[in-house]
Amino acid sequence: MTNGKGQVTFVSGFSKKTKAEKLDWISQQFHNPSQALEVLHKYNHNDQALQTLHDEFIENALTNFYMPLGVAPNFIINGKTLTIPMAIEESSVVAAASNAAKFWSTKGGFNATIIGTEKVGHVHFMYHGDTQKLNIFFEQCRAVLLASTDEITRNMRSRGGGITALSLVNKSDAIPDYYQLDVRFETQDAMGANFINSCLEQLGTTLKALAAKHADFSEKEKAIEVVMSILSNYVPNCMVEAVVSCPVNELLANPKDSSLFADKFVQAVNIAAVEPFRAVTHNKGIMNGIDAVIMASGNDLRAVSAGIHAHAAASGQYQSISKAEIKDGVFKFSLSVPLALGTVGGLTKLHPLVCWCHELMGTPNAQELMQIVAVAGLAQNFAAVKSLVTTGIQQGHMKMHLLNILNQHQATEVEKKSAIAHFKDCNVSHHTVADFLAKLRSV
Amino acid sequence: MTNGKGQVTFVSGFSKKTKAEKLDWISQQFHNPSQALEVLHKYNHNDQALQTLHDEFIENALTNFYMPLGVAPNFIINGKTLTIPMAIEESSVVAAASNAAKFWSTKGGFNATIIGTEKVGHVHFMYHGDTQKLNIFFEQCRAVLLASTDEITRNMRSRGGGITALSLVNKSDAIPDYYQLDVRFETQDAMGANFINSCLEQLGTTLKALAAKHADFSEKEKAIEVVMSILSNYVPNCMVEAVVSCPVNELLANPKDSSLFADKFVQAVNIAAVEPFRAVTHNKGIMNGIDAVIMASGNDLRAVSAGIHAHAAASGQYQSISKAEIKDGVFKFSLSVPLALGTVGGLTKLHPLVCWCHELMGTPNAQELMQIVAVAGLAQNFAAVKSLVTTGIQQGHMKMHLLNILNQHQATEVEKKSAIAHFKDCNVSHHTVADFLAKLRSV
Repeated sequence: MTNGKGQVTFVSGFSKKTKAEKLDWISQQFHNPSQALEVLHKYNHNDQALQTLHDEFIENALTNFYMPLGVAPNFIINGKTLTIPMAIEESSVVAAASNAAKFWSTKGGFNATIIGTEKVGHVHFMYHGDTQKLNIFFEQCRAVLLASTDEITRNMRSRGGGITALSLVNKSDAIPDYYQLDVRFETQDAMGANFINSCLEQLGTTLKALAAKHADFSEKEKAIEVVMSILSNYVPNCMVEAVVSCPVNELLANPKDSSLFADKFVQAVNIAAVEPFRAVTHNKGIMNGIDAVIMASGNDLRAVSAGIHAHAAASGQYQSISKAEIKDGVFKFSLSVPLALGTVGGLTKLHPLVCWCHELMGTPNAQELMQIVAVAGLAQNFAAVKSLVTTGIQQGHMKMHLLNILNQHQATEVEKKSAIAHFKDCNVSHHTVADFLAKLRSV
Repeated sequence: MTNGKGQVTFVSGFSKKTKAEKLDWISQQFHNPSQALEVLHKYNHNDQALQTLHDEFIENALTNFYMPLGVAPNFIINGKTLTIPMAIEESSVVAAASNAAKFWSTKGGFNATIIGTEKVGHVHFMYHGDTQKLNIFFEQCRAVLLASTDEITRNMRSRGGGITALSLVNKSDAIPDYYQLDVRFETQDAMGANFINSCLEQLGTTLKALAAKHADFSEKEKAIEVVMSILSNYVPNCMVEAVVSCPVNELLANPKDSSLFADKFVQAVNIAAVEPFRAVTHNKGIMNGIDAVIMASGNDLRAVSAGIHAHAAASGQYQSISKAEIKDGVFKFSLSVPLALGTVGGLTKLHPLVCWCHELMGTPNAQELMQIVAVAGLAQNFAAVKSLVTTGIQQGHMKMHLLNILNQHQATEVEKKSAIAHFKDCNVSHHTVADFLAKLRSV
């Protein structure tokens, strides 16, 4: 774990250096500094203003990491046709989404419904004293607590959002003296993290100040300790559902295949409901679709992902977040996911390609974006399970990965064409592709 | 959810079109097609060969989505100094990682240990019959099953990996007639998804074939149905631990502050152990560090993320994956995470910036990369919890986000400088920044 040259690489005040100085320092960590520098330069944009915009998103930015931006056309969502943008590096994801979109386009498409939009955050605090006195104090102070956020919530309230509920939660059964202010929010088209955290920090400050001068409290009770004030990325009341459905016998070209396919599909999803080893990969497939759209839309995929996986585990056992059933001859496949998303704030209006993606999606508001993202997740899941229970996952995946393997072997355009034709009917693996190229090159 | 022009946007054979045709079609979905096209062109690379390489990573690639690539220097891991590359859009993540690295660099740095490297996958199948007969069949066929993968595992075995265990699991208590072949793997420096899935598909095929001609089976028992054969991204035996530790009184400049800080820090982490609302965001903070390095290293963050969050829920309640304690006057903060990573295969040797990142990290093998990623997660968590229990999260976060807000208001370089100076001692919010700029511009 030494650097290329085995040298100590400590540096002071790195973030204060100019970008040129940063590039120069970092390149010295490489065996071949000028080559390392060249790679960074190659990925920096020639348009200095554009590059500065991207550099200013984070600290110590050196260049642009390229993630392919692809599109999956032919999605019908609530009756409207849509092309979904996806930023993702995994070879088979966009292809799978496109296939699922096309498959369902002739069967009524996808339907999506918002179940709720509530966000949540907490002031976590310690109170050493009589719980009943705390309850009375809280009820007396509720209005003042809320009023102390008026300045912060003004703009949000004018847009129809704000704080929707404030309650005191006794958590002292979990940790002695531990309580929460539990705060619920409506943040409209913003994901709302900064808004929520600002409200919570203010509530924490006000809580401490009010307690300190509350006459009925003892000295010990007055000394409320705010441990932290922070939003939660677990948003079980900010949910969207996506559904596809059609008569079983219309699933495939002939009714007998359809019935077998539907049964096996439901079986596979049921296995993901009861077996955590399978559930994790099942949901990972859903996240292939969700994360790709989240990234393209400029939202935060770590936040979304944490909330969704916690939701998958809410029953006490980690399980599939999608469900499949056959009822009265009708196949139904659905997905419910918590999604706290923004179409304003963060990078959504700043990153030119994010703006482009929003326009491609018809400039959705936050609720419409939730629907699109959930549909992308369901489509991805459908395509993956369909492959798994029919041809197996490797056939499609390796076909898509073929070009990567060819590129690894520096295949020419002519060799690529010939390989693509050859592997139409043959198994793709690193091994078979290497053999094919070796033979081709020995001719 | 219509497109910009409210038109129907169905297309046939999109993936077969040339890139120019794709760009042309997609631009027609926009109010201003030439502008939309210009954005895509702007982000495409001038070097055609390089652009083709990136385009071939996925289907329907239209351009490159820019994610900032930053670096966090001054990490000491197992005694060696390292600069960690991070691909991430969230403004405060690289800054927080750098701060945590520097903080611990004077206190012995980070230590990381591999707990295990076992990967896992399953053939999920239905068997309608006598369980005892299946057990006997399995023991009789074990060697033939394994031998059927010889061709696939040959290269991996020569590198010291391969199939390490094969067992039959009866899951019929969960779903009638449901059984698994549970297969364990060692995949050395490969993440191993393609290798594992190829082995599993072969095992499924062999299992079916052997059952069909097994004399002791009835016709019903012979008809084993393989539902699917697939690796699991839940890898509880592929674990790494990262730790930081120092005497409590050396944490901060003076012993009294140190003691208060350590207590509050431990309290905050304990809250994340018992309160799922907090645990999700606590772990999300860890994933800020982990996902950024995963992306920079060309690994699959959906897979890693699913496995880690399922691990967080393994006790039956979703909880923090890091732990903090004070024992005999020593503060210890640690993180255990399942991480199935590769330093070969996938995009690791294909994406020029991924190669660059690997070289920056000293060309780690898979186990060393696991250690670096775990350390990045722990560092991120330390920085976030430290902010939360001291200044609050908003102060640091909004300072980092200031440039984004300024860019949103098209601030000039002169205005930016003036704003950065002004907000050194003032609260940053969209509101206060807008006010500041308005005043500045009205002068």
